[in-house]
Amino acid sequence: MMNVPLLISPMLERAERIFPKKEVISCSPAGLHRQTYAETGKRARQLADALGKLGVKKGDRVGTLAWNDHRHLEAYFAVPGMGAVLHTINLRLSPEHLTYVINHAEDRVLLVDASLLPIVEAVASQLKTVQAFIVMTNSGDLPDTSLNPVIFYEELLEEGDPAYVFPKDLDENDPAGMCYTSATTGMPKGVVYTHRSVFLHSLSLGLADTMGLSEADVCLSVVPMFHVNAWGLPFAATWFGTTQVLPGPMLKPDVLAELIQSERVTVTGGVPTIWIALLKELERKSYDLSSLRLLLFGGAPAPASMLRAFEEKYGVPVLQGYGMTETSPLVTVSRLKSYQQDLPLEERLTMKAKQGLAVPGLEVKAVGPGGEIAWDGKEMGELLIRGPWIADSYYKDDRSQEAFQDGWLHTGDVVTIDPEGMVKIADRTKDLIKSGGEWISSVDLENALMAHEAVYEAAVVAVPHEKWQERPVACVVLKDGFKGQVSKEEILDFLRPQVAKWWLPDEIVFMDELPKTSVGKFLKRALREQLQERFSPDRLT
Amino acid sequence: MMNVPLLISPMLERAERIFPKKEVISCSPAGLHRQTYAETGKRARQLADALGKLGVKKGDRVGTLAWNDHRHLEAYFAVPGMGAVLHTINLRLSPEHLTYVINHAEDRVLLVDASLLPIVEAVASQLKTVQAFIVMTNSGDLPDTSLNPVIFYEELLEEGDPAYVFPKDLDENDPAGMCYTSATTGMPKGVVYTHRSVFLHSLSLGLADTMGLSEADVCLSVVPMFHVNAWGLPFAATWFGTTQVLPGPMLKPDVLAELIQSERVTVTGGVPTIWIALLKELERKSYDLSSLRLLLFGGAPAPASMLRAFEEKYGVPVLQGYGMTETSPLVTVSRLKSYQQDLPLEERLTMKAKQGLAVPGLEVKAVGPGGEIAWDGKEMGELLIRGPWIADSYYKDDRSQEAFQDGWLHTGDVVTIDPEGMVKIADRTKDLIKSGGEWISSVDLENALMAHEAVYEAAVVAVPHEKWQERPVACVVLKDGFKGQVSKEEILDFLRPQVAKWWLPDEIVFMDELPKTSVGKFLKRALREQLQERFSPDRLT
Repeated sequence: MMNVPLLISPMLERAERIFPKKEVISCSPAGLHRQTYAETGKRARQLADALGKLGVKKGDRVGTLAWNDHRHLEAYFAVPGMGAVLHTINLRLSPEHLTYVINHAEDRVLLVDASLLPIVEAVASQLKTVQAFIVMTNSGDLPDTSLNPVIFYEELLEEGDPAYVFPKDLDENDPAGMCYTSATTGMPKGVVYTHRSVFLHSLSLGLADTMGLSEADVCLSVVPMFHVNAWGLPFAATWFGTTQVLPGPMLKPDVLAELIQSERVTVTGGVPTIWIALLKELERKSYDLSSLRLLLFGGAPAPASMLRAFEEKYGVPVLQGYGMTETSPLVTVSRLKSYQQDLPLEERLTMKAKQGLAVPGLEVKAVGPGGEIAWDGKEMGELLIRGPWIADSYYKDDRSQEAFQDGWLHTGDVVTIDPEGMVKIADRTKDLIKSGGEWISSVDLENALMAHEAVYEAAVVAVPHEKWQERPVACVVLKDGFKGQVSKEEILDFLRPQVAKWWLPDEIVFMDELPKTSVGKFLKRALREQLQERFSPDRLT
Repeated sequence: MMNVPLLISPMLERAERIFPKKEVISCSPAGLHRQTYAETGKRARQLADALGKLGVKKGDRVGTLAWNDHRHLEAYFAVPGMGAVLHTINLRLSPEHLTYVINHAEDRVLLVDASLLPIVEAVASQLKTVQAFIVMTNSGDLPDTSLNPVIFYEELLEEGDPAYVFPKDLDENDPAGMCYTSATTGMPKGVVYTHRSVFLHSLSLGLADTMGLSEADVCLSVVPMFHVNAWGLPFAATWFGTTQVLPGPMLKPDVLAELIQSERVTVTGGVPTIWIALLKELERKSYDLSSLRLLLFGGAPAPASMLRAFEEKYGVPVLQGYGMTETSPLVTVSRLKSYQQDLPLEERLTMKAKQGLAVPGLEVKAVGPGGEIAWDGKEMGELLIRGPWIADSYYKDDRSQEAFQDGWLHTGDVVTIDPEGMVKIADRTKDLIKSGGEWISSVDLENALMAHEAVYEAAVVAVPHEKWQERPVACVVLKDGFKGQVSKEEILDFLRPQVAKWWLPDEIVFMDELPKTSVGKFLKRALREQLQERFSPDRLT
């Protein structure tokens, strides 16, 4: 067979040749911008050529700080197409982390959306490798900035040859992109994508049993292009000639609902919080969402009420994808099998709330205290993943060893796998309670607790225990009307029929509030520290 | 990214783990045989282990002479899974060619369907490398044979360990399979498939815009498993957990119609002659084909009447695939773009009669006398293909140079490409007429001629010409009632409004019959020789 490398530039070339008239629609406060794939290809070639003239060479990192729009899409193809590496930067990083990732990746050039200049200006003096700032904005709309040297994107394009030819002598294992993921402690960790991994991952998005992304689709990528390549949607959509709708910074639910309605969006992807906000908007005002054939969510579990509302009330099929920065990201999708399609809605929603089946090309397994777990939907183990679009290390980072062992990615997610092969996340390894050689899921206990009418919120953490090693303790905040009215025994009685006996928390600690991170997640580390003082490890229950 | 090779065995492993209950249904004169993917996996492992014990080593060729059935499917995974090479042999080869391909491939073992033993027995004394014949049949159903040594498949399996583990340290570029294709002159030419090429080709069959093969499908592979891996369907269907229906030797249209009806087949693939016969059967008797969502055809152009009948009369969407043994085979599919779906039926059928759009991952272009042709639907050129599942040579064959040049496969098919990127075959290069630096399609002229009410059949060939190099001459057989009633001028007048003036044949030669090959194709070489005597090259018209 021909030794043809799996590269990114032929994806764009296919769109240019076969789908030149299909459109990329991008939103900004100035309104909608429409351009064809023919124009997108021409502009990407201009950008690649101009970056080369600016001194960007094969292997150099080019950073982007940008929303989802047509210019960012052009960079998605121009930068890897010319052999350089697209480093998409999370625009919500702290100044400290922002400085770190740009310096650590050694970005040579930064492409910055005009609206995000202040973020870069704040750290510019700390940046050690950046030789030019390219400001992405409409011409005639050039902002003042303290950055230096500054080049305006549209002027830069004019320096580039629209007939530039993407090199085809790249190695498919050459780096094509990179993305940093936040670490539990310390600085973000970088993941490097290759041409091969992007090619294979993009194909997987087109499979009928994953998303079935098609030329006939109109794809609205709500998930940011700085977040794991917007789940790979911009690459796959371009390759397949899919119409793309890129919302720019316009992420308000009313704007998204309007876009879905006016552009007849068929497929969209984003985190649950976006869709919960959309549901609220749909309650407020009526929109025509009949074009939607698939609403993809991922990045966090979604409440059952969200799935039910979309499927039942609005007739929008939902699909959960699971993955992480290290996995490009698609690992599993919650697609039901043919013989499950006739199950009652509630059962189907329960299945769709699981993370789902591994897509073709990847292997998954889970390892618990006793080795590889049975696929019985009960035994718990840490999810391990292997495959050609799974990272094998962090970029120049000593912390790689923890996650990458024996050829598998150790995800840190504790899961069950049912006899159908459906993966379900039970916990994060660090939040898991290891009791007497068995594992207890803090997430399951929290969900059970929060179903109690008096409970406002609940977090379950492990406390050390001499005999059992660890035991669960539940921290519960009661709703205002119930404070002081509910006893520990009442809560335990409520849990008893729902969980195994040895899962019952040793203690229910009532609190006025739970410590939380800046994004609203429970700060379990702080809880564990608080509780350690109260529970001595040598108690025997 | 992880250096995980793209291999075949994980496809089967996915079916075993995630779709253990899904079925493979195979037909024989004895009736339907059903087995699950769990059983298929177990038996494939037994076969692999037993072949190893028999002395088959990595890289050894294992030949199969078999119909489409569950045992052949087991070999599809066992042989490449263990690192050996699956050589699927066309059971319709002449004894001379059969002997050649087995000796040329150096098959070490032959798996032979019991019904095909006479074919092998006839050449057995000529075979130089075969060390064992494994007869595929039900136990208790063991035929007499002169072959030696003979092992019965079901007994062989008992020697194999069902817990055999497929090696994962293969190189993705290792050979996995091979298939010989007939040559214009001389012996068949061998094409070697690799694990990588099968992996990538299989993914392409799952794309929504190609076949969209899915777990929910019931796939009837009518195209033989000895013919380019049944277009790759058995690999992809297993990987995706698709229910498979394998018709064995039962290829009569009534049996196929019954199967589609009883097994609720959703997708099927085969050559046009099969579907034309099926249409005839549908005229005769009523069947419920409502489960069919896709009827794939390829291998030869189909008459417009066939497409119309399936789409209009039976509501079965048809899709043409184009490819060849050298291309794994999928290169293009005649899938319409979203904005073409609302065109009138006739226009859609005209498009579906074209070979279609290149699938993601491949590049196509066409080269004519003036270099790469314009995509205008008019200019003609030889189709060239490049990609990771396209062969780069014939196996140990001096004839490779002709077809493989400058990194492209030269298909020998002359095509036009329209502005939408739709490839349409105009001719074979060898049948093309090269007149004054321009190309004339013999196929187009023949189609135009055969639309005349008096014409029974027509073949157009090139005759040498001093000024124009070549000119077309039409050989026409008139229908019985019209013999002697139609003049050359009448035929030319009929053609005149349909073709360019310089395309008009120099001569219409009326004949009683046209020379044909054993499979009914016009023997143009013989025609050219006949005509050469009549037309001197130095004539000037």
